[in-house]
Amino acid sequence: MVLNIQEIIAQMTLEEKAGLCSGLDFWQTKAVERLGIPSIMMTDGPHGLRKQKAGNDHLGIFDSVPSTCFPAGAGMACSWDRELIKQVGAAIGEECQAEDVSILLGPGANIKRSPLCGRNFEYFSEDPYLSSEMAIGHIEGVQSQGVGTSLKHFAANNQEHRRMSVDAIVDERTLREIYLASFESVVKKAQPWTVMCSYNQVNGEYASENPYLLTDILKEEWGHEGFVVSDWGAVNERAKGLAAGLELEMPSSNGAGDQKIIDAVQSGTLSEAALDRAVGRLLSIIFKAVENDKENASYDPEAHHQLARVAARESMVLLKNEGGLLPLKREGSYAVIGDFARNPRYQGGGSSHIKPTRLDDIYYSLLEEAGSYAKLSYSQGYVSDSDEPSLELIGQAIEAASQADTAIVFVGLPERYESEGYDRTHLRIPESQIRLIEAVADVQPNTVVVLSNGSAIEMPWISNVKAVLEGYLGGQALGGAISDLLFGNVSPSGKLAETFPMELEHNPSYLNFPGEGDTVEYKEGLFVGYRYYDAKRISPLFPFGYGLSYTTFAYSDLSVSSHSLKDTDTLQVSVKVTNTGAMQGKEVVQLYVKDILSNMVRPEKELKGFAKVDLQPGETKQVSFTLDRRAFAYYNVKLKDWHVETGEFEILVGASSQEILLVESVVVESTVSLAKSYTRNSTIGDLMGDPQAAAIIQAMLSQAGEMMPMLQDGSDMMIEMMRNMPIRAMVMFSQGAMTEQGLDELINLLNSNK
Amino acid sequence: MVLNIQEIIAQMTLEEKAGLCSGLDFWQTKAVERLGIPSIMMTDGPHGLRKQKAGNDHLGIFDSVPSTCFPAGAGMACSWDRELIKQVGAAIGEECQAEDVSILLGPGANIKRSPLCGRNFEYFSEDPYLSSEMAIGHIEGVQSQGVGTSLKHFAANNQEHRRMSVDAIVDERTLREIYLASFESVVKKAQPWTVMCSYNQVNGEYASENPYLLTDILKEEWGHEGFVVSDWGAVNERAKGLAAGLELEMPSSNGAGDQKIIDAVQSGTLSEAALDRAVGRLLSIIFKAVENDKENASYDPEAHHQLARVAARESMVLLKNEGGLLPLKREGSYAVIGDFARNPRYQGGGSSHIKPTRLDDIYYSLLEEAGSYAKLSYSQGYVSDSDEPSLELIGQAIEAASQADTAIVFVGLPERYESEGYDRTHLRIPESQIRLIEAVADVQPNTVVVLSNGSAIEMPWISNVKAVLEGYLGGQALGGAISDLLFGNVSPSGKLAETFPMELEHNPSYLNFPGEGDTVEYKEGLFVGYRYYDAKRISPLFPFGYGLSYTTFAYSDLSVSSHSLKDTDTLQVSVKVTNTGAMQGKEVVQLYVKDILSNMVRPEKELKGFAKVDLQPGETKQVSFTLDRRAFAYYNVKLKDWHVETGEFEILVGASSQEILLVESVVVESTVSLAKSYTRNSTIGDLMGDPQAAAIIQAMLSQAGEMMPMLQDGSDMMIEMMRNMPIRAMVMFSQGAMTEQGLDELINLLNSNK
Repeated sequence: MVLNIQEIIAQMTLEEKAGLCSGLDFWQTKAVERLGIPSIMMTDGPHGLRKQKAGNDHLGIFDSVPSTCFPAGAGMACSWDRELIKQVGAAIGEECQAEDVSILLGPGANIKRSPLCGRNFEYFSEDPYLSSEMAIGHIEGVQSQGVGTSLKHFAANNQEHRRMSVDAIVDERTLREIYLASFESVVKKAQPWTVMCSYNQVNGEYASENPYLLTDILKEEWGHEGFVVSDWGAVNERAKGLAAGLELEMPSSNGAGDQKIIDAVQSGTLSEAALDRAVGRLLSIIFKAVENDKENASYDPEAHHQLARVAARESMVLLKNEGGLLPLKREGSYAVIGDFARNPRYQGGGSSHIKPTRLDDIYYSLLEEAGSYAKLSYSQGYVSDSDEPSLELIGQAIEAASQADTAIVFVGLPERYESEGYDRTHLRIPESQIRLIEAVADVQPNTVVVLSNGSAIEMPWISNVKAVLEGYLGGQALGGAISDLLFGNVSPSGKLAETFPMELEHNPSYLNFPGEGDTVEYKEGLFVGYRYYDAKRISPLFPFGYGLSYTTFAYSDLSVSSHSLKDTDTLQVSVKVTNTGAMQGKEVVQLYVKDILSNMVRPEKELKGFAKVDLQPGETKQVSFTLDRRAFAYYNVKLKDWHVETGEFEILVGASSQEILLVESVVVESTVSLAKSYTRNSTIGDLMGDPQAAAIIQAMLSQAGEMMPMLQDGSDMMIEMMRNMPIRAMVMFSQGAMTEQGLDELINLLNSNK
Repeated sequence: MVLNIQEIIAQMTLEEKAGLCSGLDFWQTKAVERLGIPSIMMTDGPHGLRKQKAGNDHLGIFDSVPSTCFPAGAGMACSWDRELIKQVGAAIGEECQAEDVSILLGPGANIKRSPLCGRNFEYFSEDPYLSSEMAIGHIEGVQSQGVGTSLKHFAANNQEHRRMSVDAIVDERTLREIYLASFESVVKKAQPWTVMCSYNQVNGEYASENPYLLTDILKEEWGHEGFVVSDWGAVNERAKGLAAGLELEMPSSNGAGDQKIIDAVQSGTLSEAALDRAVGRLLSIIFKAVENDKENASYDPEAHHQLARVAARESMVLLKNEGGLLPLKREGSYAVIGDFARNPRYQGGGSSHIKPTRLDDIYYSLLEEAGSYAKLSYSQGYVSDSDEPSLELIGQAIEAASQADTAIVFVGLPERYESEGYDRTHLRIPESQIRLIEAVADVQPNTVVVLSNGSAIEMPWISNVKAVLEGYLGGQALGGAISDLLFGNVSPSGKLAETFPMELEHNPSYLNFPGEGDTVEYKEGLFVGYRYYDAKRISPLFPFGYGLSYTTFAYSDLSVSSHSLKDTDTLQVSVKVTNTGAMQGKEVVQLYVKDILSNMVRPEKELKGFAKVDLQPGETKQVSFTLDRRAFAYYNVKLKDWHVETGEFEILVGASSQEILLVESVVVESTVSLAKSYTRNSTIGDLMGDPQAAAIIQAMLSQAGEMMPMLQDGSDMMIEMMRNMPIRAMVMFSQGAMTEQGLDELINLLNSNK
């Protein structure tokens, strides 16, 4: 195949090669018929397939063929279930095959820097490890069907505001440990056929023409084998982009981009070899797509709908359940309230907006489940299109709620609140819904709130209600899933993949979101999500990793394979989890690593492992994790590599980021020693911390009692002053005993010690 | 005089000129007898005079001549009293004259970035306006006596940790609006004879050799007329420092620095003209000092002690007074508890540590005040040297407290907790004292805590006690001041010049203090102190500007001279304050300015005026403020100047940063228009916001309905998408109607409109 491709490239004209580097139209690559190069089709994703019937746009305006709408990424990540997301991916892959789609434009692995980001519903998490594990599952699933994916939006595209012009200023370590980390293992482990570059600039350079991101890191460091496609319209300077590693411009630029490539090659500013390499990457994926194309493929929409239901109920998170109000009793009367119960909010707006094969009416799903044993009523409660409370609808809801045993209120964010293309400006649900909740809760102590939203919200009303189920955007089968959970056919098992703050202002990015003009500085650095709330001792509304169940779990027997290891070793960790309640249930076991003492600024703890365990009442299972160097490492910008500081680490295992149940301690020893480079401004304290340097300097300081009157004091202040003193100060304070020349000699001596 | 100096310089040898640029020893400049150049003496300050008797050190180890110890800067700033700090400065100036000291090394105007900074007790505030006003008062006072000052530590020296090597990375706007702003008006209005450069690096360059700070800003922009002296030992490369604007190296480098200057001039890397300019600045201050020297000067130690008492009682802040426990009744029995009552903590450690002319024993001060009408007992409670609770001493305190009507517990930070040279690592007082407070409060509901500390502390015990008086480091007359306040001879009138956080972690610098290795990044940017707590909605323990009184005040009749002004106009603001209580008292009226809507990231409000008013019961006074451009401006880094955005501002007047009582609104119009520079990545939204550009672009977009199918949608998403779209995208989305050439022409057209 490789040989073939080289032969084809050799036969292509410059114009054909340049032409292959941009789309034919909105969705297809160009064919070169004389050389047998076919055109392949891409469509939007990621939680379902959006193949347009007619008209070209990239924002879900025109009609598309029906496909199964699975829960959006924000919810899927709350399943913490690698296998499930893989199954969903495989189902979407089947649908792609049935519709002759070669590449699905997803998943999105951008980190949720702010809950305001309009596209958070498509993304997985605030944590790069969870996010990348979910992306891997999704990609492995889709690609198992011979359909490619496009891991997006690479990189640092964490807001919609000014997304086509904004420059994300992110320090190297934060980029590596948070924003790129969410892509890195995905590329390495799942090899998405394509990676989609984002619209924005990263540290002064458009992502679409950023050689550091697209070539140095993605292709060379991580070994990405496929091609990079631009987000639709993300190309700034086409020739520069190609040189930087952007193979495919989408959609068509009507020849403008192609011409720029031709001009650049002809003028010598772009080497033809670079163009050939780009064409090689494009052809290898185009032919791979063709090879994997399944003739007459089809899928079972009903089976996919059922999978969507399973996915939805695994994703939803039980946030509050005072007095065990849930699961609901299989008797009595229920007032189902809220427009969302009939007109559900089940997916986000923008390019991912698909046409579902069918769509649950939540009220009917509840009726189907409980109609035989309970009495249900419905009232609308609010108008989804309006923030203005409707006193009439609220009145009807109060009436219905007061006559029932329990009220179930369906609220959340209307579609106009969150979408690709713009960010939210606050975290509240509409006033019309808040007033409804308060009014219903006033007359009905047994009030359950079921939320549909793609990202965190504030809940100033939460103390008024007994139970809250976070449904996220549950996809087309959300009704069945909600009914399964509310009536206890299945216990909730989702856990939050993001922190819900008490108030928007508490979010780490708040002071620097969405930036000033075309600059957004990620000044919170590594402290994204729980890393921030942990360190700053700010209590969130609900912490990362949190979620309730109808059963209870006990953790025991945490053990590690060794209490002392080198950074080249792996560590095995195991823990037992027991279902101590009366109902089958699943628990998401979380493993965090904490560096006890570091010279670097480090988060208090970081997620480095998780597992979802299904347990019958009384059943115990052992869960195992393998930790390697990366579980303990930080990114060392001088070394340009990950580095483990020798020292003690804690292995924290628990049920959420704030519910750590078991702790073990290990010592990890680094096998990499950092180069020494002492200068006249190195401090005496630093030298004292280096055994070899300390020996040299101590010999000098033993004479210092005579040299420096300051040293005779011996107080805390003096000791600390000495520690912080640069060695150059000895020239001054030694009253002539140390000369500038002597200092230079000392520095040479210190640096010569390896 | 100027002519004279030029003549003298012309007669000086290169060696004499270089020699003048460093000290003779620890405290004196070099004389050049053959030319009649005298030696002058500097000594440490700033809250008193530290003239060493024998031995040379810069850290308060060796004995010094007695002088009046006034409250340290942290407390003085809580007086918010410009006139008082000027009186204190004048008194110190008198003492300098009496001791033949020409320059007092203070005041320190560094911003309190973190409450952990070991030297915060010497500094004034977290707010640059309050800090600079206090520094102006101090300098005007000292210099009114013909004695020079040294405004220090310039600049961005906000921690002691690694202070001689650390590099403070501060963005230009933050530097200008916060850290330099605390120096700027001081230099412009008070002309300190000298400015002391700090030890640390600022944005990669040592402050001692930073031409941007020492020459561009200090000398050229701000017009400083005196000389710059190094902090003791702050010189890194002497010749580079001289070229950058550091005139005087201190202390003596034993000729090493002088030789480097000579070598640099001889090798041509330093121009002799630069050296001449430095010598000119040195000589002008040296001769000024000699001219202003008063023969046989003396001062009245008793009068200065009384002034120290007034200063202390104006500085102390009443933080809590449940049930009006204070002022104490002039009857009954009092258990005075705590070692600090007999061995007071009244000043900080390090170079500012002076030998007082006398020192109050607080217990005796209380006895002197109340011995005739109340019964007082004393018990030690804890050992100041130890953090370990003493069960025996606590037992005695419980006994004493339970037998008295009221307990007064003296606690705070021992000297070893805060000092020049190192930072604190937590905000707690010693465990020995916490346990004492809890034990006493357990048996005595009427417990008053009096604190002595140089910087904010956490108070997890505060709910146990009824009253808390923050005494800061009250100087030698603190006993009299405390007794005046506790027994109500005078009402407390101090207000906090810094936020007290609930927990250290809430402090804005927490995640980036004291930095990694030799780098500390000021990532919180402008959000220092109350600017952060305001914006982040984090409740502090006590907010900036807060303080209680024994009387009450009412605010009324806020008025502004105009509701609409140009940024070249000034605005007069007045407000009436009435003492509505039964006791004479002083109120600190605070004026903050809030920019209602800005394209820039801005704090919610900023202090721009304050006044301390003395009011008899029932008395009303009108307080007036004048606001100029700077009160509304932010620092525009592109413009390299302060800039007012046209729009609405609120004038907030109140009793603390969180107790705003009156609000007026004004519209300020900018007289400066920012230059246009549209590019292919300017967004359509930006063009629409500029009337001239909008006219051009609207004509184009009127055709866009046909050009761009996306535009036909008209949804919120589409409108927002269009706003965020760079104009280059028109080439792609117009399907050929807009060419690259057409785009270039459009950009030229847009930029040609002025």
